[in-house]
Amino acid sequence: MDYKAAFTAAVSQIREEGRYRVFADLKRHRGAFPRATWTRADGGESEVVVWCSNDYLGQGQNPVVLDAMHQAIDDHGSGSGGTRNISGTNHHHVELEAELADLHGKQAALLFTSGYVSNEATLSVLQKILPGLIIFSDAQNHASMIAGIRNGGGPRHIFRHNDLAHLEELLAAAPAHAPKLVAFESVYSMDGDIADIGATAALAKKYGAMTYLDEVHAVGMYGPRGGGVAERDGVMDQIDIIEGTLGKAFGVMGGYITGDAEVIDAVRLMASGFIFTTSLPPALTAGALASVKWLKQHPEVREAHQERARTLKKMFQDAGLPVMENDSHIVPVLVGDPVHTKLISDMLLADHGVYVQPINYPTVPRGTERLRFTPTPFHTDDMMRKLVGAMEKLWAHCNVARMGGHAA
Amino acid sequence: MDYKAAFTAAVSQIREEGRYRVFADLKRHRGAFPRATWTRADGGESEVVVWCSNDYLGQGQNPVVLDAMHQAIDDHGSGSGGTRNISGTNHHHVELEAELADLHGKQAALLFTSGYVSNEATLSVLQKILPGLIIFSDAQNHASMIAGIRNGGGPRHIFRHNDLAHLEELLAAAPAHAPKLVAFESVYSMDGDIADIGATAALAKKYGAMTYLDEVHAVGMYGPRGGGVAERDGVMDQIDIIEGTLGKAFGVMGGYITGDAEVIDAVRLMASGFIFTTSLPPALTAGALASVKWLKQHPEVREAHQERARTLKKMFQDAGLPVMENDSHIVPVLVGDPVHTKLISDMLLADHGVYVQPINYPTVPRGTERLRFTPTPFHTDDMMRKLVGAMEKLWAHCNVARMGGHAA
Repeated sequence: MDYKAAFTAAVSQIREEGRYRVFADLKRHRGAFPRATWTRADGGESEVVVWCSNDYLGQGQNPVVLDAMHQAIDDHGSGSGGTRNISGTNHHHVELEAELADLHGKQAALLFTSGYVSNEATLSVLQKILPGLIIFSDAQNHASMIAGIRNGGGPRHIFRHNDLAHLEELLAAAPAHAPKLVAFESVYSMDGDIADIGATAALAKKYGAMTYLDEVHAVGMYGPRGGGVAERDGVMDQIDIIEGTLGKAFGVMGGYITGDAEVIDAVRLMASGFIFTTSLPPALTAGALASVKWLKQHPEVREAHQERARTLKKMFQDAGLPVMENDSHIVPVLVGDPVHTKLISDMLLADHGVYVQPINYPTVPRGTERLRFTPTPFHTDDMMRKLVGAMEKLWAHCNVARMGGHAA
Repeated sequence: MDYKAAFTAAVSQIREEGRYRVFADLKRHRGAFPRATWTRADGGESEVVVWCSNDYLGQGQNPVVLDAMHQAIDDHGSGSGGTRNISGTNHHHVELEAELADLHGKQAALLFTSGYVSNEATLSVLQKILPGLIIFSDAQNHASMIAGIRNGGGPRHIFRHNDLAHLEELLAAAPAHAPKLVAFESVYSMDGDIADIGATAALAKKYGAMTYLDEVHAVGMYGPRGGGVAERDGVMDQIDIIEGTLGKAFGVMGGYITGDAEVIDAVRLMASGFIFTTSLPPALTAGALASVKWLKQHPEVREAHQERARTLKKMFQDAGLPVMENDSHIVPVLVGDPVHTKLISDMLLADHGVYVQPINYPTVPRGTERLRFTPTPFHTDDMMRKLVGAMEKLWAHCNVARMGGHAA
């Protein structure tokens, strides 16, 4: 067996499909967000504006967060020292879990090392806790949810994206007394469209199903206190398990679930991805705690965020660029071909100081490759004008069909 | 369906088996390791010595590590801002991956958010990259390796723990031309025994199998530069993929794999658990980088660590306590019953200021429940004398049979 050849072949195939990814080596600078320094492959450096960060509100630069991190390092050192069960529960874990439970109006919360792990670990262990559980999963659920649902090994049905008629069809066809779970997201990150949480929850209830809602692209950004779209819509209490992240709007790293005490306790005691891993360091939990508390008190940041997204969408539309419409803070522009998407992205970076990553398969379906912009409250009108100007130039240069979106 | 009852029942069963876990709420104090403050359920606090940390060398308190973390926060802010592919590759990721590749004498390295994720993501995606891959897995491999092997969905064979005759039997019985992988650990964390890496690699080679070695309980602690047991034994180049963690001896958080460039590149491009998750924050990568570099230069810390473990084992033995023998830094004392293990642990904590977590199923097989001590270079003779004195008293009190290990 020639292993080297097998690995090389796997990489070559990705390269041939135009999906080979090269990391953009960045230095973010405290206080300068969204500006950063990009280190090129030749070792040279240039200044860029980051247009594709998930640090949606710029909390990664908020002095309140950074001070809390410094303090935690001074007080407690670098790491947690163990798993949550074996010497790795630090006082900040306890405080942060209480804060997150409060944010979502739930009895309890449980921290994981990432949003990915919180989805994977929870959705797989629920199938152990509730034998025979049938999961109904939105077709555009995130890879981490799909991983958890698959790894649990139980029966699952995929309903068409945000299609409640299809969901009802599937729920009605399932055995009435079997345990059921509807798993979906609030803001879908690549299209930026938003689920009707209340209607989904009502439908689940009608058929005796539990609900699991991923709010990673909404926590901190929606709702009066940043509790997510479910808070904005007044339906947090209709959802059994709300999952979120500390790595996007909260600006740090880590994931969590919230729900009733007995649900959280069962997951805590049984989920492999929770039990067998070193817990989050004090600096991260302290930083996240400060960030969650601060964002609860600052709705004006959420308003500025929405305004920035609306403004950029309008500017793209006015320029005739194929922005994909939605009601969220995400501004996707369709290209529809992996090679063109990468080419435009490369030229924006090299020639215009604009860093926006090409979004290709498997992150989005083939044929819907795109550029995905995430303006924050720190992106100025001037930055937007420069961006739109550069995009107009490249769109002409690359001969990409406008508004239709597919490459010539 | 009464979901609440189902969750409550799952928790009750764990409680009945004596496996219900209560987190010890700790405050570690910079500069005071291994001392910490324990917050009791009633809110009161007491001082304890932590005897079960995986911060094996006390790097969680090393000023070199903490300074690097502070600097990274001052320079770059709190989080990374995205996944590695989408704006989340910071310059420290690039530097740390080069440093880790060097540590293990490999061409390349890839960072993950945890050791758990590095094992799960890599072992599952290898089954995609090498269709038909047969995995031969040691019976005591860590939960994260088992998760990755299972989640990949391909054929696997479990060989008896560290039993190379059994491994050879299984290898010989498999189709000669099928792709194969032998997955094992160097130091097994709960027994503390060490694999014969050279012999395992030779056997794998004889049957045309790749090798995957988990060194999470060895990196930083074994070998002239802290490259692990494979470095100590001079066989790093015999192993295809070496996996390690930044969360134990290196004192921070995160995991990684190292290997040939094309292997690392294929995993980087295809592993779901790598692609779809926010990358490690600058403070963690900078802290880990400083820690790895510092430990490369400080073999005397490794020597002190081994001496402390030998000394504690000898003191337990002299006191007639059933320490489980091994050649590593881990000092397990067998109790053999979950209820007794928890009882002794609770009394050590409440009455003697000794914090050592009970190790129960599923972390170890039922009937082998134990206390697992991990003395560091910072545990003094005096702390050890107090520990052994407390253990002697409780052993008598609990009427646990000495040297036999099973509860009366």
